[in-house]
Amino acid sequence: MSGVPYDDRGLLLGDGLFETVLARDGALVLWPEHLARMTAGCELMGLPAPDPGAALAACERAVSLRSSDRRLAVRLTLTAGSGGRGLDRPAAPETRLFATAAPAAMTTEPAELVTVSVRRNAGSPASRLKTLSYLDNVLARREAGAAEALMLNTRGEVACAAAANLFWFCGDRLQTPALTCGVLEGVMRGQVLRAAASLGVAVEEVSVGIEALAEATGLFLTNSLIGVRPVSRLDGRPVDDHSDVARLRAAVALVS
Amino acid sequence: MSGVPYDDRGLLLGDGLFETVLARDGALVLWPEHLARMTAGCELMGLPAPDPGAALAACERAVSLRSSDRRLAVRLTLTAGSGGRGLDRPAAPETRLFATAAPAAMTTEPAELVTVSVRRNAGSPASRLKTLSYLDNVLARREAGAAEALMLNTRGEVACAAAANLFWFCGDRLQTPALTCGVLEGVMRGQVLRAAASLGVAVEEVSVGIEALAEATGLFLTNSLIGVRPVSRLDGRPVDDHSDVARLRAAVALVS
Repeated sequence: MSGVPYDDRGLLLGDGLFETVLARDGALVLWPEHLARMTAGCELMGLPAPDPGAALAACERAVSLRSSDRRLAVRLTLTAGSGGRGLDRPAAPETRLFATAAPAAMTTEPAELVTVSVRRNAGSPASRLKTLSYLDNVLARREAGAAEALMLNTRGEVACAAAANLFWFCGDRLQTPALTCGVLEGVMRGQVLRAAASLGVAVEEVSVGIEALAEATGLFLTNSLIGVRPVSRLDGRPVDDHSDVARLRAAVALVS
Repeated sequence: MSGVPYDDRGLLLGDGLFETVLARDGALVLWPEHLARMTAGCELMGLPAPDPGAALAACERAVSLRSSDRRLAVRLTLTAGSGGRGLDRPAAPETRLFATAAPAAMTTEPAELVTVSVRRNAGSPASRLKTLSYLDNVLARREAGAAEALMLNTRGEVACAAAANLFWFCGDRLQTPALTCGVLEGVMRGQVLRAAASLGVAVEEVSVGIEALAEATGLFLTNSLIGVRPVSRLDGRPVDDHSDVARLRAAVALVS
């Protein structure tokens, strides 16, 4: 069957995880990092880890079906599998794994960011995972319209965009929300943190309110598909550039 | 196909809604209330409302396949349908609707309730809807083990159980968390509120911390399958009964 059955817990309850992996010229980019994150997420959620060979094979098969596209977004989905009625999982859940691929054009223009009302749940471990319960992100994107959505968490701290991590400069220090703010531990976020360290840029993971962004420069978004994407406006106000953004962008382009 | 395709947004992103309806001796209980709630949820989420005839037909078909069971839990699921890559819905989403049914034994013994660490997101409209992004509830149930999970919201206020609303008595006043606490507007919650009014029991919808339950009596849970289910222990402490619980239980049994 080319789909999932009606009793799948991912479908019924959002009980599962996913990864969005860039494939460039047929090759999966940063695959070990994506697999490691899904594996860690399964452990946190009490699900069996994905079989590494099966996960890779599913992604490669999805890519092979789209061989004419040079740049693909590969979506790998793991559900908690078929389960009885209600919230309780079966005693031994058998996860379900599948992958699809779609063309992913490179985004070149900078983003506009607007603060939305939907908050990240700082009181749930799920807010740090890439889960199938992604409705808050859908609603945040919807509220932002043509712009990208800046989400605060339930404590009022700056968290992330609906589908990207957020960085900015405070003077010459690169800052990004700490994972405890309820943000996804993005694969590209990790690459930027490492690139900054190797370039000698000071980095701080912070828990701050939106007012901390008033003086920020060099705001940018990161995820596996866009890499580093500068933000030109925040809530209508122009954001000044910072010279280190281009250096970081070049550095992660080399590794991704 | 007896399932949903891999590009379904309910499956991929938890973008959709559901209802759990009791069927007794083949008849759907409180069907108009369930349909009205799903319709209102669709409006809040920006999705087209379910076709009433199609929704009823799906539920009745699911019930007819289980005609030997006198008491069924009918699960009606509406997804945002197939959609392009990423968070953005298609310009005109075509929702997908299906229903399944499973035996639902009546629960007769009282519940034990334990407070869990997973919080309801008071900063998202989704916390007041029965959405396919139900992972926080799954994780709350999991944390509670054999007991039922008492969830606070991100402001620390008492909210609900993982799959039930919560009521208690403060003296002779019946109290339940206000919808603004991030709780589902339960169909059975509504029935209890109406029953209390008709019995002359004073009702208050409140926003209170867990300390408010220290002196509470007659704690009980409600949902469409269990009706009114008394709670015997809260975090290990015995909960005193209140004579009005049995009256409310009898009253909603007549209407449900």
